[in-house]
Amino acid sequence: MADEDFAELIAGPHAVSAALKAHPDSVDCVWIAKERSDERVQGIMDLARASHVLVRQSPRSALDRMAPGLAHQGVLARRRSIERPREDHLAAHIERIQEPLVLVLDGVQDPHNLGACLRTAEAAGVHLVIVPRHARAPLSAVAVRAACGAAERLPLYEVANLARTLRALKEAGLWIVGATADAPVSLHEGAPPTPTVWVVGGEGAGLRRLTREACDVLVRIPMLGQVESLNVSVATGLCLYESVRARAAAGARGAEIALPPINH
Amino acid sequence: MADEDFAELIAGPHAVSAALKAHPDSVDCVWIAKERSDERVQGIMDLARASHVLVRQSPRSALDRMAPGLAHQGVLARRRSIERPREDHLAAHIERIQEPLVLVLDGVQDPHNLGACLRTAEAAGVHLVIVPRHARAPLSAVAVRAACGAAERLPLYEVANLARTLRALKEAGLWIVGATADAPVSLHEGAPPTPTVWVVGGEGAGLRRLTREACDVLVRIPMLGQVESLNVSVATGLCLYESVRARAAAGARGAEIALPPINH
Repeated sequence: MADEDFAELIAGPHAVSAALKAHPDSVDCVWIAKERSDERVQGIMDLARASHVLVRQSPRSALDRMAPGLAHQGVLARRRSIERPREDHLAAHIERIQEPLVLVLDGVQDPHNLGACLRTAEAAGVHLVIVPRHARAPLSAVAVRAACGAAERLPLYEVANLARTLRALKEAGLWIVGATADAPVSLHEGAPPTPTVWVVGGEGAGLRRLTREACDVLVRIPMLGQVESLNVSVATGLCLYESVRARAAAGARGAEIALPPINH
Repeated sequence: MADEDFAELIAGPHAVSAALKAHPDSVDCVWIAKERSDERVQGIMDLARASHVLVRQSPRSALDRMAPGLAHQGVLARRRSIERPREDHLAAHIERIQEPLVLVLDGVQDPHNLGACLRTAEAAGVHLVIVPRHARAPLSAVAVRAACGAAERLPLYEVANLARTLRALKEAGLWIVGATADAPVSLHEGAPPTPTVWVVGGEGAGLRRLTREACDVLVRIPMLGQVESLNVSVATGLCLYESVRARAAAGARGAEIALPPINH
């Protein structure tokens, strides 16, 4: 089943343009709606031709049929699968990064949320993202589009056993920090210990028990209203930007106060 | 045109349940798919009946036809419009709040994003949200559902002239803090001046010129990757939670260093 859920169709000028820039070799055809002839579309056609990618101009209705339900805005591309990194390369990958910042998404099921998390992760300087193989959203065209180009650039590891992977990361010297509603410590009470693996749970369900037990530190996002949780991409942003803040502060004035580890 | 875009159909057990709890009088009928008979649905039926709301059990296919494209999960409700607060009540509303925290969404067009912003705003303790009447997403069923109950609880003011409203808020002693990619100061360089009006721009376009000129302070969210922007609900979360952090810190250890105002 390896990669069959990988995006075959990329929709929208932004996503197609990002795919052509990042991995032109993986794109084999671009469709442009005949009704469009603006500069944006001209730029995409030039980009495609420069990489020897076939360009076809078709009626918008043909694009609608190819990509039902996708907001393609008159621009579609077909590509071969992005090569997904192999789980057994993860340890070596981590070792090559000076101070790794890692995001783990434990059970994000919605492709739109997955894409928004990847977009947020790339903006926050995350080096790689890890998802459990059996509880993840497909990296579908919807996810790729919501990621605004980050899906092409950010390595996304699928692992067979997330708790085991987290233990291995811990042994490699990383701190596992989980976000959960019932944590005793607020996100704002101190800087995350570094290097950091942020672990965020999926929609509704939160962290699974084994994932939670693999965490060194648990923090909660303060909730001041009646809604019970935040959208997973918003929660992901709040967590990751604590690391952005801590890095900027460390650069500016040395080490920060670290959050205390927990005992399970 | 006043309220014709207000949610008529609410989809999904979570949103229906929240609507029944917050404004039972506004809901006039609940539909449950005959195929469902679980506890969740039983709870919703009990809630509806306790408020004298009509409950109808219909085949799932009938619900699909009533709410095409909505993920209703077998639960729908119809309601009359939520009463929207009147613009001329805004000043008095602000005056009643001890330390107001306000969110302005300048040109958010996507109802899903609007809903996610309302959900985030309620979680961060925002008192009220302001949108410009002529550049806003409809508070549609999609938005209400994405807001997870916050749309029912958080006052949403539509104003005719946003720049004028911002000037009035400034005269009332509030600080207008705008988030924009080219601001000289990072979000993390100091606490927002209080009481705070956070101003976040719409998808892609960012703050409009007149909005920007009405701001006392402009801050940018650090972007460490190649993506050019964050999803508007993620950006909103990062801004608002700076106020959450500052309030917690002020409670814990007195006043914070404030961000410097700008000269346009």
